Amino acid sequence: MLLKRLACLSFSSSAASRILKIGDVLKHSRKFSDLDVLEYSKLSHDSNPLHFDSKCAKTAGFEDRLVHGMLVAGLFPQIIASHFPGAVYVSQSLHFKSPVYIGEEVIAEVQAVSLRENRKRYIAKFSTKCFKDGRLLVLDGEAMAILPTLSMGEQQ
Amino acid sequence: MLLKRLACLSFSSSAASRILKIGDVLKHSRKFSDLDVLEYSKLSHDSNPLHFDSKCAKTAGFEDRLVHGMLVAGLFPQIIASHFPGAVYVSQSLHFKSPVYIGEEVIAEVQAVSLRENRKRYIAKFSTKCFKDGRLLVLDGEAMAILPTLSMGEQQ
Repeated sequence: MLLKRLACLSFSSSAASRILKIGDVLKHSRKFSDLDVLEYSKLSHDSNPLHFDSKCAKTAGFEDRLVHGMLVAGLFPQIIASHFPGAVYVSQSLHFKSPVYIGEEVIAEVQAVSLRENRKRYIAKFSTKCFKDGRLLVLDGEAMAILPTLSMGEQQ
Repeated sequence: MLLKRLACLSFSSSAASRILKIGDVLKHSRKFSDLDVLEYSKLSHDSNPLHFDSKCAKTAGFEDRLVHGMLVAGLFPQIIASHFPGAVYVSQSLHFKSPVYIGEEVIAEVQAVSLRENRKRYIAKFSTKCFKDGRLLVLDGEAMAILPTLSMGEQQ
């Protein structure tokens, strides 16, 4: 069982790993395309016209069609899992502050705010924010995850 | 502008519409397949081995591979948008209580807990829960959304 565990965790022990500390910020930028939004709609069965119909989006007060908020929110576990394969999500809060339009670049940031060892794993609390247009906050919140190690691989 | 607005909102004024009241529960059941998890991984770029590698998932204490938490969480906006097309998400809290395995049936429930009119729209707070195996809670939280109307279409 221990060998299996080590084999599994070897995902995260790549070259140039370093140890997560409080205050560290992990980032990832992304532009969600028309196709991303279409694929997510099919997968989630979410057919909100704000994502497909420019007129409806404009009538509702937006500049154009929106990326699904939960698709943008997926950047946070993606960042955490890319540095800590095997991480288990415990909680996430999400406050949608500004719209994200199709084709806009967003930068998601995950900052470690507390770290606690528990039974050879680590309970980590992260501040999770997403920005566009420089530092315009589009999504704010906190996540808690159980990390198998504090040793970070480089983001994939 | 008003005509456009009415045209947009006509999505929700299908036959047999009824008015959302505090206490109403909207439900949707779903089984996430292998293909769903694969497609979501491609879309989100989330390559956590817990979703692909049974051995890793078991080593981490699970019965088998997990569905991504954020994919399960997408059931809540899907339910809200299917009854209220044009709904705008404001916030969502998510507490992942139990794992959801590939192929398991989950039932998501969205219950209206407060409704407030504001500038001809409605600010709605929902209790959002997801269950499996009867009433085993897998995901708990609250959502807030701006609804264009309280008139509900049937779920699509």
